Amino acid sequence: MAAPPNSTTFSGDVWAELRLADARDVPHIHRLTHQMAEFELLTDLFAATEELLTTTLFPSPTPPPFTSFTALILDLSPSPIVPDASSTIASRRLDLSASPLADPEAAAFASPRGGGRVTAGFVICFPNYSTFLSKPGLYVEDIFVRAPWRRRGLGRMMLSAVAGRAAELGMGRVEWCVLDWNKNAIDFYEGMGADVLPQWRICRLAGAALDKYKGSQEEAAGGKAA
Amino acid sequence: MAAPPNSTTFSGDVWAELRLADARDVPHIHRLTHQMAEFELLTDLFAATEELLTTTLFPSPTPPPFTSFTALILDLSPSPIVPDASSTIASRRLDLSASPLADPEAAAFASPRGGGRVTAGFVICFPNYSTFLSKPGLYVEDIFVRAPWRRRGLGRMMLSAVAGRAAELGMGRVEWCVLDWNKNAIDFYEGMGADVLPQWRICRLAGAALDKYKGSQEEAAGGKAA
Repeated sequence: MAAPPNSTTFSGDVWAELRLADARDVPHIHRLTHQMAEFELLTDLFAATEELLTTTLFPSPTPPPFTSFTALILDLSPSPIVPDASSTIASRRLDLSASPLADPEAAAFASPRGGGRVTAGFVICFPNYSTFLSKPGLYVEDIFVRAPWRRRGLGRMMLSAVAGRAAELGMGRVEWCVLDWNKNAIDFYEGMGADVLPQWRICRLAGAALDKYKGSQEEAAGGKAA
Repeated sequence: MAAPPNSTTFSGDVWAELRLADARDVPHIHRLTHQMAEFELLTDLFAATEELLTTTLFPSPTPPPFTSFTALILDLSPSPIVPDASSTIASRRLDLSASPLADPEAAAFASPRGGGRVTAGFVICFPNYSTFLSKPGLYVEDIFVRAPWRRRGLGRMMLSAVAGRAAELGMGRVEWCVLDWNKNAIDFYEGMGADVLPQWRICRLAGAALDKYKGSQEEAAGGKAA
């Protein structure tokens, strides 16, 4: 299959790095999040802005990784990665010699780290807590790889790295959610050793239904009867 | 119905306070968590200890409430609550004149705050993050009321107070999970305005399945191919 016009073709060896994001990555995180909303058929819930992403993910000072909201970026590089102890979470070589890869959005997703790198995915995670275990864990809010880079083991690399970090930090579990119709994802997660819990359902208060509770402590604190 | 022996009977006016927990509340949190595990038929997952609860919920220094893992205690008092700005989250009067309440565990659950107060429930919550909203929210890990104190509006008071705090902090949503067979809870949550999301399933890596990812970054970082 010929690459589409303006597409960048990757072949031979390329190097993947999962690294801590910083504020320069926000435009890509914003656009990746929108692609994820499209994939999940949930664009009606999409309200992300670059300004909000910057202030909520990269406050000043930014807490240490994995102690609060943590964004990770997946970059692909045409040259070997030199791991940076302060930001590299995982890295590996990808052999594309048997099947070159055309990325039509490579220019739009040029990594702010330069060097011909392209941003191909991201992870957002944060600590959660299990009272039964009395231990923190990690909750993976998002894990996303752009379409041309899928089925190359990169999702596995990303989730393995997060799980590895959680295990090394002595955390009790790693959790995330999956849509029940996303059979490919469910098979993939189960193949990685995860249990998909059949009985639990998520409850959500948001928007106007949440706002109506503003001031409910004061009302209650006023001594109002049942 | 006569109260069982050793039971404490509450009648007339009593006052409920939802307050920030501290390390003195850990023995009660531990026992309440075990009661919750029994209720949920999940005692096989119960591994909480007082030591772990203390170090994980009340590290030194303890972060400000609702910025990290946050434990709240529900106390019932035979005399009016004087709200304490540093710890009271919500309070209200409960009129038991029509139906006195026998609490067989009142002595075992005497509140460390004294004054004849008894601890009747707890909440554990922590911040989560929605990338679609680009905003933090609150995740309610546990909300539990001991059996004799149920159906008195106390669960509603607790969840309303947490939702109110989230709304006032400008958070985007409050989420929690419910077992799909717990029809009473689902009806209650929907009555409070929550959506119960039908499509999402929780995935969990824990125990040995998690531990096997230890060191997976190092392995990947070593340049191992796909």
